[in-house]
Amino acid sequence: MANSPSGDSILDRVVRILESFDDTQPALTVSSLSRRSGIPQATMYRLVGEMVQHGILAREPDGRVRLGLRLWELVARSSPAKDLREAALPFLQDVQSVVHQHTQLSVLRDGEVLVLERLSSSGSVINQASVAGRLSAHDTSMGMVMLAFSPAEVQEEYQRLHTDVDIRFSAAAGDFRRALAEIRRRGFASYDGVLDDGTTGISVPVVDRAGHAVAALGVVVPTGVAQRQAIIAVLMAAARGIARAAGEEPPGRTASDFLVQ
Amino acid sequence: MANSPSGDSILDRVVRILESFDDTQPALTVSSLSRRSGIPQATMYRLVGEMVQHGILAREPDGRVRLGLRLWELVARSSPAKDLREAALPFLQDVQSVVHQHTQLSVLRDGEVLVLERLSSSGSVINQASVAGRLSAHDTSMGMVMLAFSPAEVQEEYQRLHTDVDIRFSAAAGDFRRALAEIRRRGFASYDGVLDDGTTGISVPVVDRAGHAVAALGVVVPTGVAQRQAIIAVLMAAARGIARAAGEEPPGRTASDFLVQ
Repeated sequence: MANSPSGDSILDRVVRILESFDDTQPALTVSSLSRRSGIPQATMYRLVGEMVQHGILAREPDGRVRLGLRLWELVARSSPAKDLREAALPFLQDVQSVVHQHTQLSVLRDGEVLVLERLSSSGSVINQASVAGRLSAHDTSMGMVMLAFSPAEVQEEYQRLHTDVDIRFSAAAGDFRRALAEIRRRGFASYDGVLDDGTTGISVPVVDRAGHAVAALGVVVPTGVAQRQAIIAVLMAAARGIARAAGEEPPGRTASDFLVQ
Repeated sequence: MANSPSGDSILDRVVRILESFDDTQPALTVSSLSRRSGIPQATMYRLVGEMVQHGILAREPDGRVRLGLRLWELVARSSPAKDLREAALPFLQDVQSVVHQHTQLSVLRDGEVLVLERLSSSGSVINQASVAGRLSAHDTSMGMVMLAFSPAEVQEEYQRLHTDVDIRFSAAAGDFRRALAEIRRRGFASYDGVLDDGTTGISVPVVDRAGHAVAALGVVVPTGVAQRQAIIAVLMAAARGIARAAGEEPPGRTASDFLVQ
């Protein structure tokens, strides 16, 4: 791999440039791009020029650069998130048409919640998740439900990496392992006002044949919403549909007995 | 920019690798990747190794590689398609909940229709569009409506690049310029069975302040559907909503008089 004088490869630099953009800063000047990525400005001008030629970056009329539509096209058409997202989208719409609140699909990635898709309606309560955004796993119902339906070694690794101090003020406050066992028994996770006051997150796992979570399906509703049990039932049915549409055979019954309790 | 012995840059090669994947082939062996991209196999092994390290590619259990979720995350969170797509999604859902058929949003790109988003329901008719897929502009109602609401020089350039032979068997059969003028007068494009027998595409433009199309909103319905005028009215209202949500001021009235005709 060709290296720059400073020893980092072109690929390193390209990734650092892509990482410099985010949803709050989708367009940057070359000099702020240089500052954010730690790549010298002269090098950056050359690199940006070539990336624009390839459609990886695009220039705005004001001279700032942003990601190119060509890059989006290449990534979106064969994205690893595409199959799960496409399998899930009709079910997300079904849930949203009944619940009328933010409905979202996420996966666990590097111990964090990575949001794959999100449907909102104008009357929805506030919600911090945005597509391709990340959230702390132990602060969200989506993260906790995916951890609860993960193999024991994943749970242990997560606990090892997150000290008690981190978990103490979160959805997992109290005993982390006991919280996970409880979620596993019930089949869903639900937390009030963890990320935002007045909102409640409710999530269920989308599980594979082995019963492990491949994703989480969640809604954010106003705290104290009347039909909580009905919402959970809708989510559970939809999660089974997503698993089936994604080619996973759902287990014979959902993990929870809550409807016959 | 560092070059390989054959003279193409690392960035060239990275783009050629990304281009090798598509929605029919989202996972490839290193040797088929080498064949598709024209990059020697030994070089490819080294490059794939580094791209996997950066999360641009990911290895499947069977040894094939595909695009990495990290790459999707970087691109999706600040994608140029994100603002328009997020502005449009609630309106796409509104249209789909009324029409119950494929509902899609696209832009004109390099003279082709690039599909940004698509909502389907299980009872929908067949439809060749898929997210991040491309379609010929003069073969689709979305493409024709965007061309009709483009500046004259864009229309002329398109006609120059597409010979009569190409256009003869398409939605634009007959006189291309007359077809565009007619669409512009009506405010929508509608074609029966152009891509698939038994289906009709109906599209309206999402226009900017200058009255030029920034996107097309379209549905694919069974040919001969009863409520055609009502569907067009729903699309026109939704397209204005998308323009407003995307920060464009829609013109004082829609281009069409069809509701008062």
